[in-house]
Amino acid sequence: MADAPKTGQLVLSIDAMGGDNAPGAVLDGIDIARVRHPGVRFLLHGDKGELERLMAGDAGLLAVAEIRHAPDVVGMDDKPSQALRRGRETSMWRALESVKAGEAAGAVSAGNTGALMAMSKFQLRPLDGIARPAIAALWPTMHGQSVVLDVGANVGSEARHLVDFAVMGAAFARAVFGLKTPSVGLLNIGSEELKGNEQVKVAAQSLRDAGLDIAFAGFIEGDDISAGTVDVVVTDGFTGNIALKAAEGTAKLVSHYLREALKRSLLTKIGAFLASGAFRILKARMDPRAVNGGVFLGLNGIVVKSHGGTDGIGFAAAIDLAIDMAKQDMVRRIADDIKGVSGVLSRLAPAAPDATDAAAVPPA
Amino acid sequence: MADAPKTGQLVLSIDAMGGDNAPGAVLDGIDIARVRHPGVRFLLHGDKGELERLMAGDAGLLAVAEIRHAPDVVGMDDKPSQALRRGRETSMWRALESVKAGEAAGAVSAGNTGALMAMSKFQLRPLDGIARPAIAALWPTMHGQSVVLDVGANVGSEARHLVDFAVMGAAFARAVFGLKTPSVGLLNIGSEELKGNEQVKVAAQSLRDAGLDIAFAGFIEGDDISAGTVDVVVTDGFTGNIALKAAEGTAKLVSHYLREALKRSLLTKIGAFLASGAFRILKARMDPRAVNGGVFLGLNGIVVKSHGGTDGIGFAAAIDLAIDMAKQDMVRRIADDIKGVSGVLSRLAPAAPDATDAAAVPPA
Repeated sequence: MADAPKTGQLVLSIDAMGGDNAPGAVLDGIDIARVRHPGVRFLLHGDKGELERLMAGDAGLLAVAEIRHAPDVVGMDDKPSQALRRGRETSMWRALESVKAGEAAGAVSAGNTGALMAMSKFQLRPLDGIARPAIAALWPTMHGQSVVLDVGANVGSEARHLVDFAVMGAAFARAVFGLKTPSVGLLNIGSEELKGNEQVKVAAQSLRDAGLDIAFAGFIEGDDISAGTVDVVVTDGFTGNIALKAAEGTAKLVSHYLREALKRSLLTKIGAFLASGAFRILKARMDPRAVNGGVFLGLNGIVVKSHGGTDGIGFAAAIDLAIDMAKQDMVRRIADDIKGVSGVLSRLAPAAPDATDAAAVPPA
Repeated sequence: MADAPKTGQLVLSIDAMGGDNAPGAVLDGIDIARVRHPGVRFLLHGDKGELERLMAGDAGLLAVAEIRHAPDVVGMDDKPSQALRRGRETSMWRALESVKAGEAAGAVSAGNTGALMAMSKFQLRPLDGIARPAIAALWPTMHGQSVVLDVGANVGSEARHLVDFAVMGAAFARAVFGLKTPSVGLLNIGSEELKGNEQVKVAAQSLRDAGLDIAFAGFIEGDDISAGTVDVVVTDGFTGNIALKAAEGTAKLVSHYLREALKRSLLTKIGAFLASGAFRILKARMDPRAVNGGVFLGLNGIVVKSHGGTDGIGFAAAIDLAIDMAKQDMVRRIADDIKGVSGVLSRLAPAAPDATDAAAVPPA
């Protein structure tokens, strides 16, 4: 169906069946992405019959995409350990397998986050020196965007993990934002003695002592994220996930307030009509699809998680991120940075293994 | 200066020197509040000379307020333990002392949060059965408001504390929202096995088993807060504080985006002018001063913390909250609810004492 990949040509592996609107939204996303990124090729893992039917007649798509049949799908509510044990036939597993085999530079999936992280850890393995891979998100700010991590790969994090996140987040910011020395802040609830848990205090001291190639800004608070105070915001996966979703909920609430307020009178309705260009801009800036994609950092391979409920526009944004990371040789850069600070990191207390570490669960 | 309090008359104790804009903003706040709450009287703790000078000629204020001289002030950056040891002469300490002595029904301060909580614990003591008092905030939602706690009194929380927070938050919601059976949700990052830390899992099981007079909704996620999914959102102080501030930052960011978008062209400017009534409504709904006030729950007395940078309008909102709590007999209601569930709570593992517990630090 598709030509054999040329040497040096970028290939992405796609979980075509993952997400609430798969495979339709996934194919729509590739259709958008292939125009933005001519020359990139896609391996589509999923139900061959269904994909062929949906792609029939789309010459542009057929020219860049190759279907790889996978009979099974990871459910959005499947437990990660279950998916890991029984999921060898799923489109998600196969998509990651292509990365592991070196056929593809990275994988994109809109499927179950926990399962995707568990399978990614198992197949791609964490980089040497990284105890806990993390999920990084791009967060819109007053000055553009910042990287926030971890936003949900781990339920708790020791100081050592937070230092890893700082190193990985900085490497990501260097590559994606083109910064030489990114500023990094540790999310905390203040700087008074009673404020801040033990992990963030120890992590802050380590980051101060480590002599990393970052501008360590110390502690920042929740409102600093959107203010864009730093390029990289480091926090544990529990807090980061809740902060991210609380912010998404707030953006929705404010939009709701705005719509309600504009409906109040004929005058406000006329005003809203005249200013509709402005509201379109606002909507575009607040469109969660524009920054769709949780990036898995700290693995021997590129994995991007698209929002499960996204459409083609959002999925295309996740593909953009994966391509960016591949072109920037992100995995090698993070590995180099981690090696460069391993002396510093080894002086910290050794990280305890994660009790819920998915990679520890053997597939049946 | 003021008449002697009549029997049954509500008296509030005010830290007149706490906050970035004290005592001006504090006096402005009382001036607003005294009109809304005729009959309420205020004990103003602070610099007598300065307060007399500022209040001179304001007959309305002088009629309801009595100045109590306090020579010292807790600095906004003072460490809580330091404030506790050396702060006996401060306006904050004295304001709480009036509550302890039974002279006032509650205290309001815009000063240093950590110091206020440390002094409150030391002077008013936690209620029987409450290991960790919490700070509750009112959070605007799609359906009105919800209670969120803890938003910063504690840096970490065991399961037992989260259960306490649920009981206290429900009592608060009953009183402030007039609900019979408030719905309560535990903030988490999902319901999959890999998601959620040990504390929230144990707390959820306890809340399910406890037979409390609440509608326990199980786990909720960050975006459920603004959605108004439940009346009471329970979380640890670290996550709650960061979620609250992340949401505040997001609201500011969206407002910024809106202003920028409306400036784009003459047409959008005209539209914005015609719709200005709507933007005033939006601004009022998003005004952080309207829901200003972190309520300290779980103490033998009412303490409300106003935002440090607030003005008179915000300080008046914090006074509103304190008056509401006093009229609803909040302390007794929480004490009763805690007694009612003590059998349930005692079956949980005993709570470890807080290593950074301010109440453990003896004042010099």
